[in-house]
Amino acid sequence: MAISLAELATRLSARLVLAPSSLAEAPLSGVAPLEDAGPSQVSFFSNARYKAALLATRAGAVIVGEDDAGLVPATAARLVCAQPYVAFAKASAIFHPEVRPAAGVRAGAIVDATAQIDATAAILAGAIVGARAVIGAGTVLHPSACVLDDARVGAGCTLHAGAIVRERCVLGDRVILQPNCVVGSDGFGFAFDLEGDGDGPLHRKIPQAGIARIDDDVELGANTCVDRATLGETVIGRGVKVDNLVQIAHNVQVGPLSLLVAQSGVSGSTTLGAGVILAGQVGVVGHLKIGDGARVGAQSGVSRELAAGAPVRGAPAIAHREWLRMSAALPKVPELIKELRRLEKRVAELEKKGT
Amino acid sequence: MAISLAELATRLSARLVLAPSSLAEAPLSGVAPLEDAGPSQVSFFSNARYKAALLATRAGAVIVGEDDAGLVPATAARLVCAQPYVAFAKASAIFHPEVRPAAGVRAGAIVDATAQIDATAAILAGAIVGARAVIGAGTVLHPSACVLDDARVGAGCTLHAGAIVRERCVLGDRVILQPNCVVGSDGFGFAFDLEGDGDGPLHRKIPQAGIARIDDDVELGANTCVDRATLGETVIGRGVKVDNLVQIAHNVQVGPLSLLVAQSGVSGSTTLGAGVILAGQVGVVGHLKIGDGARVGAQSGVSRELAAGAPVRGAPAIAHREWLRMSAALPKVPELIKELRRLEKRVAELEKKGT
Amino acid sequence: MAISLAELATRLSARLVLAPSSLAEAPLSGVAPLEDAGPSQVSFFSNARYKAALLATRAGAVIVGEDDAGLVPATAARLVCAQPYVAFAKASAIFHPEVRPAAGVRAGAIVDATAQIDATAAILAGAIVGARAVIGAGTVLHPSACVLDDARVGAGCTLHAGAIVRERCVLGDRVILQPNCVVGSDGFGFAFDLEGDGDGPLHRKIPQAGIARIDDDVELGANTCVDRATLGETVIGRGVKVDNLVQIAHNVQVGPLSLLVAQSGVSGSTTLGAGVILAGQVGVVGHLKIGDGARVGAQSGVSRELAAGAPVRGAPAIAHREWLRMSAALPKVPELIKELRRLEKRVAELEKKGT
Repeated sequence: MAISLAELATRLSARLVLAPSSLAEAPLSGVAPLEDAGPSQVSFFSNARYKAALLATRAGAVIVGEDDAGLVPATAARLVCAQPYVAFAKASAIFHPEVRPAAGVRAGAIVDATAQIDATAAILAGAIVGARAVIGAGTVLHPSACVLDDARVGAGCTLHAGAIVRERCVLGDRVILQPNCVVGSDGFGFAFDLEGDGDGPLHRKIPQAGIARIDDDVELGANTCVDRATLGETVIGRGVKVDNLVQIAHNVQVGPLSLLVAQSGVSGSTTLGAGVILAGQVGVVGHLKIGDGARVGAQSGVSRELAAGAPVRGAPAIAHREWLRMSAALPKVPELIKELRRLEKRVAELEKKGT
Repeated sequence: MAISLAELATRLSARLVLAPSSLAEAPLSGVAPLEDAGPSQVSFFSNARYKAALLATRAGAVIVGEDDAGLVPATAARLVCAQPYVAFAKASAIFHPEVRPAAGVRAGAIVDATAQIDATAAILAGAIVGARAVIGAGTVLHPSACVLDDARVGAGCTLHAGAIVRERCVLGDRVILQPNCVVGSDGFGFAFDLEGDGDGPLHRKIPQAGIARIDDDVELGANTCVDRATLGETVIGRGVKVDNLVQIAHNVQVGPLSLLVAQSGVSGSTTLGAGVILAGQVGVVGHLKIGDGARVGAQSGVSRELAAGAPVRGAPAIAHREWLRMSAALPKVPELIKELRRLEKRVAELEKKGT
Repeated sequence: MAISLAELATRLSARLVLAPSSLAEAPLSGVAPLEDAGPSQVSFFSNARYKAALLATRAGAVIVGEDDAGLVPATAARLVCAQPYVAFAKASAIFHPEVRPAAGVRAGAIVDATAQIDATAAILAGAIVGARAVIGAGTVLHPSACVLDDARVGAGCTLHAGAIVRERCVLGDRVILQPNCVVGSDGFGFAFDLEGDGDGPLHRKIPQAGIARIDDDVELGANTCVDRATLGETVIGRGVKVDNLVQIAHNVQVGPLSLLVAQSGVSGSTTLGAGVILAGQVGVVGHLKIGDGARVGAQSGVSRELAAGAPVRGAPAIAHREWLRMSAALPKVPELIKELRRLEKRVAELEKKGT
């Protein structure tokens, strides 16, 4: 895959500013980070933190915003645009076009006779499709991916190896499930029954009779779990991206465009607004409402409702700024205790004198 | 599935108090939460937090305890009983009877010739049963579930898609494994060998020669792992319920009826008593004894033995009440430091005057 | 498997000191912990914590260091050596020799015609090997393990059931993947695109075009994920051991002999040096350098570079010793606030008097 500077500029809707040494028709061979890129590669700059790398780059071209265009070394052409990181994503997609397997049900796939598989879908060897399940146009099931009875998968989806969509669950279009991701596992619902069935107390299972619904353009990470609802639906909204090893409990609603980073977890019946960000290893307790655009810092524990846009951190989570001050202060507490003791002595001394 | 109010009352051993508008023989169509239920549905009330929803419900009938029966709106019949949440679980199970596939080994299942499969078990397409493995009466292996060599699975179990029971491990009766759950992975055991095998130091693997044993009525969540013992057995006791993405290390013993919520983890050789509750994302270090009924709050870190029944929280975990006071106080520390500085100045001023 | 005391001593390069009751040619039947071992079993002592168990042991022989040899009861033979825990690992391996299935591609395995399978490898029923994939000598793929297109697996590897190696990823020799482990899932990389494609903002996927490379002698735990690189390679260095449910993000580099305990996570582009230890549930943010031999205590959050060998703890992580002092002090803060208030009153009283 080679493409000229000029063509790349066109496809990115970027303004091309050639370097003295560069030719608009020079073929580019790929994308690379600033520090690795060579003269035939295109890189990008969108974070002031990497300014030194920009100044030293050997890249043949750099995607850059208007304000930073002047920083690009004279050896590199500039592809000037409004959203450099987005343009980089597009450029990388041009150089790494997704390879989708040819349509068809392969030998070694196990497809129930009552399943409806679109003729343009690809069901690879070892993939499994259950009774009455529906697979949309262009969707790919990789080896050992399972879509169980009565589940529906939309168009243009990719279910990687070992991904499982349990009974009756619904995936929209262009959904991506990374390997061993689970959609529609039973929620964790039990009623403690003191009487039991004659053999002492037990945890009586509450049927998890609902489903999980994954809207369009969602991606779920490897080994991530989305539980089905007790009744009704667990919903992952349009364009949500979920990292690996994330737990999403029964009846959770995740608003569109939210981001859930690795190993975070959301307890049952909690609702996340649109564009919420949970950083890594965050936990959110159940039955909460988290406002649109709330941002929760890594390893935080959220046990109260969060207002829209609130950046919070810590466990229990507090305003991010307050958390920064607090966590800088806490290691001083042992010394603080000593200081207080010393001061108390001085006050006692003064009191003695005063009497 | 429709059932009359009168019959439901009988099956729940509940006392039926009809509303003016309700008929004992009126058919009910299902269960629903208080806020969603309509006149043909039954709901329940067991948590004072939802009192407003109870007062406003349009449910045709409400399962309720004796003390709260008076709160049910006049439009709803009452099903009065001792354990309303348990009765709701039973009611929901009546309306959502489990669908168990027909017995038999399906085409596409891979069953070793030496495996013993009960004639009433169902081994679905893509499931795998290894050499000498035993599958009990009525047990279901969903697609791509694996029971490996010499493992034994009891009666009435459900192994969802992708669940794996490794070699020689043992499951009791009525065990449920959610998708991609792993039983019997090797424990994390290595001896650091400074000498190695001539190629520098290495971590020498300690054979994980034991097994994992899962007792009757246990449920393990999606992507949860139970490691086999180094020697002997890792044991998950009768009636334990484990949520998704939980780590249970080698030689752990989990006492009966314990609950382990999502993303919690228990390190090697730790023993949990009966009825222990670990909330989400809790970590427990190895070689500890946790007393019966200990309750550990979310995200806590337990590094010391816990007495029976102790509710603890935090990392390191302290008494729950103490943790509440502490976490309310900690954000005040930055201000506390300033106050101490100011006070110190005032004391110094007094001392100056005093001299 | 039975072996005499004398032969075991030879194979462990240990000095054999017989007990009055023991015979060099007496056959041993296995290994066991000090408290469980009987007269025909060998145990070991390497941790002062278990001194009481040593004194009470009924083991026929105890592997022990020179300094502790005198503590072994008179009923037990001593196998004296420099690294008792390592010798125990070797002894256990002698009594529990790994059972590797016979070579060959079993019926029910799905192997692409273009894959290269070494004649000594074992591809078990239900395992899947993709196009142009390479499987080395003696490697075992257990049921439902998947090695996808163009991936390469070295010699002597064990891929347990459900383990997945995605396209183009590379495993060295003697690598062990526990069940449902994932190598080469897409990294979590998205550019927020305010313009989108005409339907509002979206998270635009950045192609994860690189691979994951797992070096020789690595073990990855059950349900652990190693993401492929955005560009280039995610690398798990030689001899690294990773526990269950660990997240390793795109472009992470883990130095040789590091240990990552269960449920820990490393964010994108972070580099861990050699011999780093992350305890359970630790999180490390992205783009950091962690020095050789750094040790991070359980549940810590690392958000800054760590020097070589630094033992740290807490979130944010601080020096381990400082963390111990801090966490002992923090529960005192509520009382501290009260004391400060009382002292302030006393100072105000003194000031009043002074005027």
